[in-house]
Amino acid sequence: MKLRPEQQAEIDALRSQSFQTRRATVPALEEILYKPLPVLDHGFVRVIDYMGDDSAIVQAARVSYGRGTKRVRQDAGLIRYLMRNWHTTPFEMCEIKYHVKLPIFVARQWIRHRTANVNEYSARYSILDREFYVPAPEHLAAQSKSNRQGRGEVLTGDEAASVMRLLQEDASRAYDHYEDMLNEDTEGNVLDAGRSGLARELARMNLSLNFYTQWYWKVDLHNLMHFLWLRSDDHAQYEIRAYAKTMLQTLKLWLPLTHDAFMDYRIGAKPLSSKGWAVVRKMIAGERVDFKSSGMSRAEWRELKQALNPDDSED
Amino acid sequence: MKLRPEQQAEIDALRSQSFQTRRATVPALEEILYKPLPVLDHGFVRVIDYMGDDSAIVQAARVSYGRGTKRVRQDAGLIRYLMRNWHTTPFEMCEIKYHVKLPIFVARQWIRHRTANVNEYSARYSILDREFYVPAPEHLAAQSKSNRQGRGEVLTGDEAASVMRLLQEDASRAYDHYEDMLNEDTEGNVLDAGRSGLARELARMNLSLNFYTQWYWKVDLHNLMHFLWLRSDDHAQYEIRAYAKTMLQTLKLWLPLTHDAFMDYRIGAKPLSSKGWAVVRKMIAGERVDFKSSGMSRAEWRELKQALNPDDSED
Amino acid sequence: MKLRPEQQAEIDALRSQSFQTRRATVPALEEILYKPLPVLDHGFVRVIDYMGDDSAIVQAARVSYGRGTKRVRQDAGLIRYLMRNWHTTPFEMCEIKYHVKLPIFVARQWIRHRTANVNEYSARYSILDREFYVPAPEHLAAQSKSNRQGRGEVLTGDEAASVMRLLQEDASRAYDHYEDMLNEDTEGNVLDAGRSGLARELARMNLSLNFYTQWYWKVDLHNLMHFLWLRSDDHAQYEIRAYAKTMLQTLKLWLPLTHDAFMDYRIGAKPLSSKGWAVVRKMIAGERVDFKSSGMSRAEWRELKQALNPDDSED
Amino acid sequence: MKLRPEQQAEIDALRSQSFQTRRATVPALEEILYKPLPVLDHGFVRVIDYMGDDSAIVQAARVSYGRGTKRVRQDAGLIRYLMRNWHTTPFEMCEIKYHVKLPIFVARQWIRHRTANVNEYSARYSILDREFYVPAPEHLAAQSKSNRQGRGEVLTGDEAASVMRLLQEDASRAYDHYEDMLNEDTEGNVLDAGRSGLARELARMNLSLNFYTQWYWKVDLHNLMHFLWLRSDDHAQYEIRAYAKTMLQTLKLWLPLTHDAFMDYRIGAKPLSSKGWAVVRKMIAGERVDFKSSGMSRAEWRELKQALNPDDSED
Repeated sequence: MKLRPEQQAEIDALRSQSFQTRRATVPALEEILYKPLPVLDHGFVRVIDYMGDDSAIVQAARVSYGRGTKRVRQDAGLIRYLMRNWHTTPFEMCEIKYHVKLPIFVARQWIRHRTANVNEYSARYSILDREFYVPAPEHLAAQSKSNRQGRGEVLTGDEAASVMRLLQEDASRAYDHYEDMLNEDTEGNVLDAGRSGLARELARMNLSLNFYTQWYWKVDLHNLMHFLWLRSDDHAQYEIRAYAKTMLQTLKLWLPLTHDAFMDYRIGAKPLSSKGWAVVRKMIAGERVDFKSSGMSRAEWRELKQALNPDDSED
Repeated sequence: MKLRPEQQAEIDALRSQSFQTRRATVPALEEILYKPLPVLDHGFVRVIDYMGDDSAIVQAARVSYGRGTKRVRQDAGLIRYLMRNWHTTPFEMCEIKYHVKLPIFVARQWIRHRTANVNEYSARYSILDREFYVPAPEHLAAQSKSNRQGRGEVLTGDEAASVMRLLQEDASRAYDHYEDMLNEDTEGNVLDAGRSGLARELARMNLSLNFYTQWYWKVDLHNLMHFLWLRSDDHAQYEIRAYAKTMLQTLKLWLPLTHDAFMDYRIGAKPLSSKGWAVVRKMIAGERVDFKSSGMSRAEWRELKQALNPDDSED
Repeated sequence: MKLRPEQQAEIDALRSQSFQTRRATVPALEEILYKPLPVLDHGFVRVIDYMGDDSAIVQAARVSYGRGTKRVRQDAGLIRYLMRNWHTTPFEMCEIKYHVKLPIFVARQWIRHRTANVNEYSARYSILDREFYVPAPEHLAAQSKSNRQGRGEVLTGDEAASVMRLLQEDASRAYDHYEDMLNEDTEGNVLDAGRSGLARELARMNLSLNFYTQWYWKVDLHNLMHFLWLRSDDHAQYEIRAYAKTMLQTLKLWLPLTHDAFMDYRIGAKPLSSKGWAVVRKMIAGERVDFKSSGMSRAEWRELKQALNPDDSED
Repeated sequence: MKLRPEQQAEIDALRSQSFQTRRATVPALEEILYKPLPVLDHGFVRVIDYMGDDSAIVQAARVSYGRGTKRVRQDAGLIRYLMRNWHTTPFEMCEIKYHVKLPIFVARQWIRHRTANVNEYSARYSILDREFYVPAPEHLAAQSKSNRQGRGEVLTGDEAASVMRLLQEDASRAYDHYEDMLNEDTEGNVLDAGRSGLARELARMNLSLNFYTQWYWKVDLHNLMHFLWLRSDDHAQYEIRAYAKTMLQTLKLWLPLTHDAFMDYRIGAKPLSSKGWAVVRKMIAGERVDFKSSGMSRAEWRELKQALNPDDSED
């Protein structure tokens, strides 16, 4: 990730400012405020603003006149209680705003989370940068054999080289032709005075889905956690997971008590179906249960065994 | 509106704190932060937290790395442009959190605004206060003759006195019986050791809709303005309008440029239907148009005439 | 639950109509369409309309041109797969519309489910009926000793009688005074020609929270199941649970395959935290784990033990 | 737009089915149910299902037990009243489901309407078709001179030919390379047995934004009208407007009374700001108002003049 000097200067200016406020403030998050945290080859996540701290959740849960806080230990206990029992409204009382630079195909998955506010860079109005995503060699994976929706082995040798070359060349050429059709370069210089230039809203359609876009994305804590739960999961596509993992770090800085409860009751938790509980009860009673007697589908049985023996490597 | 001493102390403690922040900060709003602004006889609105300032809208609209601001005059122009052309997403980038004390029948109208976060005081868990709304004499109105959904003349004399008495007595008695059924008073003292006390979640059903509840309500600026547009309108019930008017003042302190644009393009604006435009065009051309030739319904015609002659007093 | 003759006639008229349609149609649900299913003492749930069937979920999941269906067995398998893996969007492709009559305090809990469409009977515009909820003797419970948010033992003897009497008398008197203030009875007859009558939007505030209101409520299947999951749970207040249980029956008639998957993976499922999995793994390996060595909070430990030994009666 | 024979057969099968239902049914919409209505070069809109008719709005507005209908004339009057006065909840009581095939850059604008249910064809799981959008010559427009976000004159001659060629060639080549990287063609044939094939979720990133995707999109009537109001407007990009115009036709078939009110009070209406009303009042009084005395910004003044003189051609 590289910033242009004027972008860096704007960020530095923001980071050097300091105001007095009566609002709940989190020094650990202030530390990284406005700073671009790199993701993938050209992307980033920047925390732009936030509202609330761990106590704000407690305060809202108690609808209190003051901080709502008793002692840190009691706050932690209440937050764990709320998380365990799916009391979601107190978590909606915190809010965070990010500036994100991300490939368009990642943006298309991300935007499916509807309960958020988003303002995207407009390619009807402005010209996109010459920046596109190309996977690092270790992420250039083949289609999974077992999962129609996932990745398998990493590609190597000629096949890897060929894929890399195609991705690079096609995106480069697409951008060259984008500028050519616009009759304008990124700085706004007209290329050929004898031509009109295609409308921006049309020219952009020549760009491929690995080009980077950017947006402001603002979300409440409850919906942020739902996003992180789904997108930091192993079933999520690697590229969006990379963003989720980085944002999970910002959650830890922002709300350490909530982060702990979230790791235990969401990220580290797995639901157990009614059939699953029946199997587990028998196993604890010392009965032998196999796939056939479990009454489960093959996929469910595999998932249950994996949850019970997380160290067994199979995939 | 009266606060208990410990509530006042909690508020004072919050108001006396001061932190350093790099976030956008609005001194005029900080001035009233946490302060209860009285509404109706026992209600209030308190600003608890906020995110963003006028520049944050500009910053999001430009998806910029820095403040996004050029000069105040340009910012104002862009905000007016966004408001006039219904670009709503930049306005979603600001957020505000209120603590509100309000009668239950007002809460029932308010909650219909779904795009907001709310955490209400739980009467399953806690005991409500002995506080209920009784209209001031000048708001004790008869049913409107012309509008099945509105108020007409103010009640006077015996009828007013009788209504006042009934509202007071019924609410008082309902609360007495609420405590009696709970077998507990507000301080948590058991009234009669020989009784069990009805569950809180059941006892509350004896309270009437003018009892006060309270909640934390958090909303983005776009949805706040939609709420204010609908609820500060003359067609809104007076009691919720009183809240909207107070919140409109907090908007002015928070985001003066946005408030100006909002007053001009939303609060002060009125839509004109395709028939309405046809009529106005004829009038400007000097043609005489009356109800019959307008092609409008009677209500539309009345509304148009009123918009054209706002000083004519008719109701 | 009693209907007025003209209401019954309107329902009969709807039930006697029959149209030709190319849309997905579910005969088992058509059977009860428009019929009021009684809930509590005066409430009901009526299915007014629906969109889609089990196949519509499959069709949407495959974004197919036709039914999307292969064989019933494959459909069931796909629906179970979607439910188990939290693929929610295909379930949003079905929709149902209910007409519900319910006490106001139940409506206040219900409305917190924001992702639904609702149109409520307006007490600003119309006069409410003289109908209020009084619990059956077996539901007149004391406050729970162990759970600050629940019910304990059933009240008996004098205390029960006294509570019943207070609820009945206060609601009756409130309604008498409501009519008196309106200066109008339910049929619209003016009571005293010399008085103006208080505006409806004000008079209603004298009614207590156990009065019945009614609304049309329309929701997609995903959000319906979320509602049913939360509100048919033992932690939900009995009165809203009664509605959820009735609606669960309508789900079974409408979408039998989805209902099965829902019972197994949601209603009958319980999440297990990361600590919970660690404990279960040890138990299966034959290790003894007690509260102290579990690392869990007391409530968590109790819940885990209950899930493992559902037949142990303790509360 | 061309369908494969098996797609056409699936549609024919759906269209030939007929069921008995008690639900509100709209014969005019049944007539086109499931039929693909062509949009752009390869896209379409198909109505897949619907809930409700004009009477359902009236029924919900009255929270009635039966049809809610009095006479058609009264229904039309109530619907116009609701539309004029922004009563939105009764319109949420109707629902429609579409199957849409559309270019990805159109899908990216469309998805910004968050209050809808959508299930998109997954390019992680399946292989996209070789179908991409290329504008018809009359839509190949230059960037607008006056509006940074719009189109101006149509391109002609060499420039048009060159743009056409680039769009065609780049998309074709991108698709060739997509297949090559997948090591698989659309029918699922492996191209080179010695290679693994890149994961689908990665290969798709080589496709450009004019490739077609498809989804099921389900929305309530209120939000559909909001979509149509924004996207059938002249300021919307032509390509999404083409979809909106086609869907507007389906609205007319489905709900003729609502469509009429919508055309008059939304599509044909224009809001007038508080300054705008002041100007109009003066003009009707015979005063001369010019830009300077209007107090308006230049853009506002231009828009007002255009609304008052719609026949004046200027752009």
